[in-house]
Amino acid sequence: METGKVTLVSAGPGDLDLLTLRAAKALASADVVLLDDLVNPEIVTLAPQARVIRVGKRGGCRSTPQAFIERLMQRYARRGLHVVRVKGGDALLFGRAGEELAALRRAGVSVEIVNGISSAFAAAAGLGMSLTHRDHCQGVTFVTAHLRDHSEPDWRALAATGMTLAIYMGMSRIDTLCATLGTALSNETPAAVVQWAGSAHERRVTGTLGNIATLARAAGLGSPAIILVGGAIGEAAAFGIDLAQASSDALRRSA
Amino acid sequence: METGKVTLVSAGPGDLDLLTLRAAKALASADVVLLDDLVNPEIVTLAPQARVIRVGKRGGCRSTPQAFIERLMQRYARRGLHVVRVKGGDALLFGRAGEELAALRRAGVSVEIVNGISSAFAAAAGLGMSLTHRDHCQGVTFVTAHLRDHSEPDWRALAATGMTLAIYMGMSRIDTLCATLGTALSNETPAAVVQWAGSAHERRVTGTLGNIATLARAAGLGSPAIILVGGAIGEAAAFGIDLAQASSDALRRSA
Repeated sequence: METGKVTLVSAGPGDLDLLTLRAAKALASADVVLLDDLVNPEIVTLAPQARVIRVGKRGGCRSTPQAFIERLMQRYARRGLHVVRVKGGDALLFGRAGEELAALRRAGVSVEIVNGISSAFAAAAGLGMSLTHRDHCQGVTFVTAHLRDHSEPDWRALAATGMTLAIYMGMSRIDTLCATLGTALSNETPAAVVQWAGSAHERRVTGTLGNIATLARAAGLGSPAIILVGGAIGEAAAFGIDLAQASSDALRRSA
Repeated sequence: METGKVTLVSAGPGDLDLLTLRAAKALASADVVLLDDLVNPEIVTLAPQARVIRVGKRGGCRSTPQAFIERLMQRYARRGLHVVRVKGGDALLFGRAGEELAALRRAGVSVEIVNGISSAFAAAAGLGMSLTHRDHCQGVTFVTAHLRDHSEPDWRALAATGMTLAIYMGMSRIDTLCATLGTALSNETPAAVVQWAGSAHERRVTGTLGNIATLARAAGLGSPAIILVGGAIGEAAAFGIDLAQASSDALRRSA
């Protein structure tokens, strides 16, 4: 019997042409596709011959337990099939990939990982700026505001590093996290919120740590969104992002 | 006269199939390609009709001043041409993209940004593990050890955040930076070095904060490489990375 395998494919932020060529190849050769939610459903057009199983864990009316997803992947791989497990963004960042990889390895299933574009990179591209800028910072921290035990990251320790902050899953507590960061950073620190970064629905506002929560709410921005904070973000505002947005959107449509 | 434009394309870590579909489309329609060093030179096969100009700033015997690169892009765009500026990894992380974007905007040249896979993501894929793991951390910091003023990042402040650390451009000072981190973190903290992540030449070692510098040197690993430090990195060692490497390499060759 032929040996099957699992390819863990990172689908990127939404637009299908932000998939890597390797991801597209994996999908084209897939027998079974397991699709997370928050992944652009049109991705199945790249795997026309595959059986598609939706296993989203949030949104919608059903949720698939993690253990069941892991058993499904093992079962199909053991039948000699090529299973492609699709997660949004880059699966190696906040994707709980570690748990699925561990389960597959324990089961002796061969697994390959294909990287993707994580939302914060797409958010920066939409804003027309770099996540780092040597005039402002030495790096960037990607942090989730959504912790398993409902605690908070140590915002003051993060602020003390001087890194750009790219905050995932923070919209439900944007007021309190900006207020906490404001105890360590100036309220004039540039900030931005980008919802649905890297997709056709992308929306964004720029402001400061002191007003970004209010601006995002006034603009109706909610989850899923990236909150960006740091001096480097000010480079976006300096060059009239509305123009950049129009230009980028036009280019995207014509691509 | 037709209006030209510049597309800033992130080439990812090396393997051409880690380019995004959008990057490949941009290259296919390029009239002029400006190629950074550290980019896989075979990328020019995706732009067969384009004039290719190599503008690497390190390695090799020549270097192209930044101002000259910026003038070249503007000149060709003003002739109505599609200029594709190619940088390694994701241009929005340590790519000095901000300076080129600012110059193009000042000149009124239309510019689009295409994201790519940054090396640390490829390094994690090679190690078969996630950059974050909710058992270990709340995020990851991408930091450069190479600062303009030859100072050091505040390693203790970074260690205090509990984030996974993905250190770029740190190989020339790996001994001192590991020693400094070791004053704030346990020397038993898992660590790894991945050279040429995401390329056919990828090489990696895993160890601890206390021994990774010695292990990397013994294995002959040098720049360009990513140094990874944090509890999440221990997930790699737990599952026999040598097997994962063999598997991943075989899959890459067969892709």
